[in-house]
Amino acid sequence: MSVTINDNYLLLQDSYLFVDIARRLENFQNENPDKNVIKMGIGDVTKPLSKTVIKAFKDAVDEMSDFNSFRGYGPEQGYSFLVEAIIKNDFKPSGINIDTDEVFISDGAKCDTGNIQEIFGLDNKVCVTDPIYPVYVDTNVMAGRGGSITNNGTYSSIVYMSCTQENNFIPELPKEPVDLIYLCFPNNPTGTTLNKDQLSKFVEFAKENNSIILFDAAYESFIRENDVPHSIYEIDGAKEVAIEFRSFSKTAGFTGTRCAYTIVPKELYGLSSNGEKISVNELWNRRQTTKFNGVSYPVQKAAEATFSIEGKKEIKENIDYYMENAKIIRNSLSNLGLNIYGGVNSPYIWVKTPNNMKSWDFFDLLLNEANIVGTAGSGFGLSGEGYLRLTAFNTLENTKEAMDRMSKIKL
Amino acid sequence: MSVTINDNYLLLQDSYLFVDIARRLENFQNENPDKNVIKMGIGDVTKPLSKTVIKAFKDAVDEMSDFNSFRGYGPEQGYSFLVEAIIKNDFKPSGINIDTDEVFISDGAKCDTGNIQEIFGLDNKVCVTDPIYPVYVDTNVMAGRGGSITNNGTYSSIVYMSCTQENNFIPELPKEPVDLIYLCFPNNPTGTTLNKDQLSKFVEFAKENNSIILFDAAYESFIRENDVPHSIYEIDGAKEVAIEFRSFSKTAGFTGTRCAYTIVPKELYGLSSNGEKISVNELWNRRQTTKFNGVSYPVQKAAEATFSIEGKKEIKENIDYYMENAKIIRNSLSNLGLNIYGGVNSPYIWVKTPNNMKSWDFFDLLLNEANIVGTAGSGFGLSGEGYLRLTAFNTLENTKEAMDRMSKIKL
Repeated sequence: MSVTINDNYLLLQDSYLFVDIARRLENFQNENPDKNVIKMGIGDVTKPLSKTVIKAFKDAVDEMSDFNSFRGYGPEQGYSFLVEAIIKNDFKPSGINIDTDEVFISDGAKCDTGNIQEIFGLDNKVCVTDPIYPVYVDTNVMAGRGGSITNNGTYSSIVYMSCTQENNFIPELPKEPVDLIYLCFPNNPTGTTLNKDQLSKFVEFAKENNSIILFDAAYESFIRENDVPHSIYEIDGAKEVAIEFRSFSKTAGFTGTRCAYTIVPKELYGLSSNGEKISVNELWNRRQTTKFNGVSYPVQKAAEATFSIEGKKEIKENIDYYMENAKIIRNSLSNLGLNIYGGVNSPYIWVKTPNNMKSWDFFDLLLNEANIVGTAGSGFGLSGEGYLRLTAFNTLENTKEAMDRMSKIKL
Repeated sequence: MSVTINDNYLLLQDSYLFVDIARRLENFQNENPDKNVIKMGIGDVTKPLSKTVIKAFKDAVDEMSDFNSFRGYGPEQGYSFLVEAIIKNDFKPSGINIDTDEVFISDGAKCDTGNIQEIFGLDNKVCVTDPIYPVYVDTNVMAGRGGSITNNGTYSSIVYMSCTQENNFIPELPKEPVDLIYLCFPNNPTGTTLNKDQLSKFVEFAKENNSIILFDAAYESFIRENDVPHSIYEIDGAKEVAIEFRSFSKTAGFTGTRCAYTIVPKELYGLSSNGEKISVNELWNRRQTTKFNGVSYPVQKAAEATFSIEGKKEIKENIDYYMENAKIIRNSLSNLGLNIYGGVNSPYIWVKTPNNMKSWDFFDLLLNEANIVGTAGSGFGLSGEGYLRLTAFNTLENTKEAMDRMSKIKL
């Protein structure tokens, strides 16, 4: 006998997008140590935590220094002060009713979108948009829902909804019944959105096919247009078919602080093999209480402060700042004659490469000629080929400088 | 078509030990609102974070408030400052060589001991001690390694090593080949330990049978006796057969702050279905980079401070304090003629119930007559029946008061 490994891991693609980027960047900087490279690749925030958040964070650390206010293990689902602040601020104002036991605080939307598939059967058909944030596919492949790798790098058992300029990056409904549908809007990487009508079609589809939508709303705070839903629960009946993932990462600059949450409505059911209806909310609760021990108390207090009047104001200023960058990128690249998408309700700008260049060729061109790092669209999937993602998470000065450099290269 | 659930979840036992305890406590307090109940049940620390840890924690929060020192996404595996401090302080002094890429920082040993099984095949035979921390069994049952539930509540596919006063709580080696062996020493719940010889036998067994030992060392800082290994890697050759889990929770009072780490040696291999040797370290790295986004930066700085000269001194004082409680519990209960185990190298004292009472009967007796909450041993497994766990994580005053009350009831 011998320990066997989870063979599904061997089906994962070897190279990881951001590792590739880091390698190419390192090579370039070794050969050009004097060049000032502007990084618009990884989707990470740059603005510090806001004043009000910092104060709450430190006050909570102080509580941990005193016997009477010290906190040990907290509820695995998160403290009620944060759960209630979330319901009151993120859902109530849109008329959405969420119960406290439908909110699960976690240390990241990456974890939650990665772990959620555990509570479902291996026979579920998974459906994703293409291009896509790689975690949704990889975690399903690890569990055994991928099937085999095809020649073009896609997985045989996964249904892909292609999003390109031909369909304006609006995925068409799957042509076959599917079970678990991952949607991320505002989208990473394309920066595009679904309006209420477009999202409603997916909710209807899910109802008709008894599917569950896994809705990643990590970028909702960047939405500027009125007709774009911040939550899938703005669509009537969505609580019967959708789980929603939210995060403080991009909203409040928590990428290094770690706090997120997931809504698992009590209306959601899945079938056991003997046909019994089982509450998905109860399954997720069992998963979280068994495998997770809650988010750091001071971090939850910091997250709560994002909902204070001052906190909201400060955070809005940060997001406005990023969105001003996005506007500058949009305008500059449009003026250069490039086809660009996103950046209106999202910190991501999805750039069609000029002259049908391959994604990585355009990446290299920008790195070598303008010393700008983007993200090759092909790294997000087959339909990402021929695109490049730029992010607005830089300083205004760097963003302007980057656009200035791009205007000087021959595209 | 319809979404199916992970049927394995239906095999999990319904009631959860600490939920049961909370319910009985609530009932008691509703009926006896004037009674001052002393809680010696849940294994949670009570002493606040130490001064040096608090300072590092707050300084790191301050760093997050400034553009130049702000940190976004960190390495999923943890920051090198913490990885290096761990190697230097927890392993180097015992002559154990650990490479930086063998250390994985996480937000909890519960998560790591729960998640580790994901990277292994479903056909592995799991072996655990009985009684046991429920997470090891539950996470394997969720994945499908449990088999069916037998009449006595055990799982048909899991191999149990019974630990009772008959074998002095030293598990006997499994009589059949097994693949994944979960060991937790100092043990939760019994508080007992393995000496070097006893642990060596398991390392030998694992080598002979090509098994992997999953060694939970969350309580190592409570070890007082010289012959008790703090790390399984103190045993020659253990790096070829063991993964070790460590935590700042019980060591430094981080139960509500959340930081832990896991050592996955590069010497470890598992077999793919076609017989290829696959690095377990690489599998875990892929798992963590795909499903986890690292521990909060200020929390990692707080954890690093536990290794400073002052930090170590403060933490030692806290542990000494708890261990003084443990000694008081040991002496008092011995004087009452009870058979007690643990509490020498562990904050847990494992009490044999008097007159062969059932665990829950003794629990109720203590709650009703002495207003003390323990943990019913049967909640940790079949061999826990007839025992009760008490913890030393209380104040000295409460501990003395509890012992005084126990001396006054008829046992």
